[in-house]
Amino acid sequence: MPNTLPTLETPAAIIDVARMQRNIQRMQQRMDCLGVRLRPHVKTSKCLPVIEAQIAAGAQGVTVSTLKEAEHCFAAGISDILYAVAMAPGKLPQALTLKRQGCELSIITDSVAGARAIVAFGQEQGEALDVWIEVDCDGHRSGIKYDDDALIEVAQVLHEGGMRLAGVMTHAGSSYELNTAEALQRLAEQERYQCVAAAERIRAAGLPCPQVSIGSTPTALSAIDLQGVTEVRAGVYVFFDLVMQNVGVCQADELALSVLTTVIGHQLEKGWIITDSGWMAMSRDRGTQRQQQDFAYGQVCTEDGQWIDGALLQSANQEHGIVTLQTAGGDLTALFPIGSRLRILPNHACATGAQFPHYHALDADGETQIWSRLHGW
Amino acid sequence: MPNTLPTLETPAAIIDVARMQRNIQRMQQRMDCLGVRLRPHVKTSKCLPVIEAQIAAGAQGVTVSTLKEAEHCFAAGISDILYAVAMAPGKLPQALTLKRQGCELSIITDSVAGARAIVAFGQEQGEALDVWIEVDCDGHRSGIKYDDDALIEVAQVLHEGGMRLAGVMTHAGSSYELNTAEALQRLAEQERYQCVAAAERIRAAGLPCPQVSIGSTPTALSAIDLQGVTEVRAGVYVFFDLVMQNVGVCQADELALSVLTTVIGHQLEKGWIITDSGWMAMSRDRGTQRQQQDFAYGQVCTEDGQWIDGALLQSANQEHGIVTLQTAGGDLTALFPIGSRLRILPNHACATGAQFPHYHALDADGETQIWSRLHGW
Repeated sequence: MPNTLPTLETPAAIIDVARMQRNIQRMQQRMDCLGVRLRPHVKTSKCLPVIEAQIAAGAQGVTVSTLKEAEHCFAAGISDILYAVAMAPGKLPQALTLKRQGCELSIITDSVAGARAIVAFGQEQGEALDVWIEVDCDGHRSGIKYDDDALIEVAQVLHEGGMRLAGVMTHAGSSYELNTAEALQRLAEQERYQCVAAAERIRAAGLPCPQVSIGSTPTALSAIDLQGVTEVRAGVYVFFDLVMQNVGVCQADELALSVLTTVIGHQLEKGWIITDSGWMAMSRDRGTQRQQQDFAYGQVCTEDGQWIDGALLQSANQEHGIVTLQTAGGDLTALFPIGSRLRILPNHACATGAQFPHYHALDADGETQIWSRLHGW
Repeated sequence: MPNTLPTLETPAAIIDVARMQRNIQRMQQRMDCLGVRLRPHVKTSKCLPVIEAQIAAGAQGVTVSTLKEAEHCFAAGISDILYAVAMAPGKLPQALTLKRQGCELSIITDSVAGARAIVAFGQEQGEALDVWIEVDCDGHRSGIKYDDDALIEVAQVLHEGGMRLAGVMTHAGSSYELNTAEALQRLAEQERYQCVAAAERIRAAGLPCPQVSIGSTPTALSAIDLQGVTEVRAGVYVFFDLVMQNVGVCQADELALSVLTTVIGHQLEKGWIITDSGWMAMSRDRGTQRQQQDFAYGQVCTEDGQWIDGALLQSANQEHGIVTLQTAGGDLTALFPIGSRLRILPNHACATGAQFPHYHALDADGETQIWSRLHGW
């Protein structure tokens, strides 16, 4: 007999497969219209059936945040993989093993020292590694500014050292802090412009730079023109979450990941409903704390997914969540009796998903199946 | 050849075994002197070698936060187990399976409705389940106030329904918000007094209440007298962390859990050192944010564990951490070159440990071995 929501033990991570498929279609169609490849970032789901749905819809290759994700994807037949975290020299042997098995693994760097470490290793091993240079388009994290002299120096070190200079890539991570279409469009154009300009500087120096890779879910869904860009990377769009809703790039009915939870108690004088969805289930991510609407640890919905207006997972201990309602009234023990179930939409799908060994994929018929996900490095 | 810190891939969760053993001894000796049993909460480590070290030192039974932990401990020969989260009716069959295998599993409730659900299930199955009543001693979460009429009502429902009323238990979770010895002693006495008073009320009503269980790491380490208490539960003391240091119940050299990380880049004009310890490794826990000293995402140490004063993991993305130094000066790329390693002490050991499939237990000789831990429910 197939599983359904009422048969699942809680807490459980639920994927609404119909919503997920719509999210995948929406992003893929957008990229198709803009004339660029989509290389989804699989760090959000770390889950093969999700990744396979993205590829079935037209994605070309994947982006990973760990070499374990790369190994997992390659074992499933996905060969074109970009490991989008600056390469630690100590991880080069693991990357080389993948390459020697036939994986088209690309690595990235954003410094002369990093490039020299890659060259030294590649030469020692007699291998031309595929390397992208990370560009910093918004100052939020890693990368070289597009107009920095170091950009050309890194390109020269890699090229002259015999590595394959595959392209430039950037990530406008500061897009998570915005919440208007105008600001997002401006940042999307800044991301595009600076990454394309970096590629043009490298090419003007007589060096190869075939690929220009940009992306974040908010900028990917806001860009009007992607001239000069060859591919876009985006991750969280596959599930969306409350942070993305606050940014303004999705609607409530597009949130595909939720946590199924059971009511285990009440503190009536405080108006508290106690659940078994603590931070071990939701994660400690409070990504909406500084946004226009703070959802605390998550938006509370009925078991079948309807928002309960003003109901928030207000606080969380390890295995206890505390739900509060904006408008009091009614007998909480009758409305939300012990043993009844709720679903909580998370702030940040990447963080909440990571708390679970597997998802329960809920299809349109109400049946669920287990989709396992990666844990660790 | 045995593994050592330099051979480990990063990020990695490191247990300093000598510190852990000292922490275990410290708590056990304290409980022995106070004349109570110690029933450690294994939700912190979720790791059998850690639990076995606690039992070898004198702990009697364990506390768990999930039935998966209970199953894991029972399979390892630990039979006396208290599941310290109010029982969801849907989890009763799983608990009964354990009991029928010979596990002395106790469950808890804090409501008439919860008690009735347990009685109904127990009667249907012809089983007298061992049930403790949760007492709310500080208003921070679940439980019945010791002087609430519902306390006796719940005890009556359980007893008259044929369940075994094993005792009362409470957890002074608000101790995490304190930071003076006086306030901690006061709360420890409040925790003791109210739980003992609850037991006495139940006994005065002619009902059995053999056990009185209290505990949190801060109150356990602050209590002066535990008259009337039969056992203490505490968890995070086994590793301690920056939150506990701010509370004032441990010193820097008692923190036994850290995350080994590799430097992967720099943003020199900002004074940033980029590492591979993002929130996926550290967790999103920001438990020190509202304490006297905010450690951001963690205190940065050298690879061999020496604090680098003023060095914090200032921010974190999924697989990127940004380290900043309080005092600038010196060439960061020379002081912390790409490929060099650091160790980060976490805010909250329970949350950081949960991000890893296993720990690396580092012994006094510098050798490490893998200790696996539980993930999920």
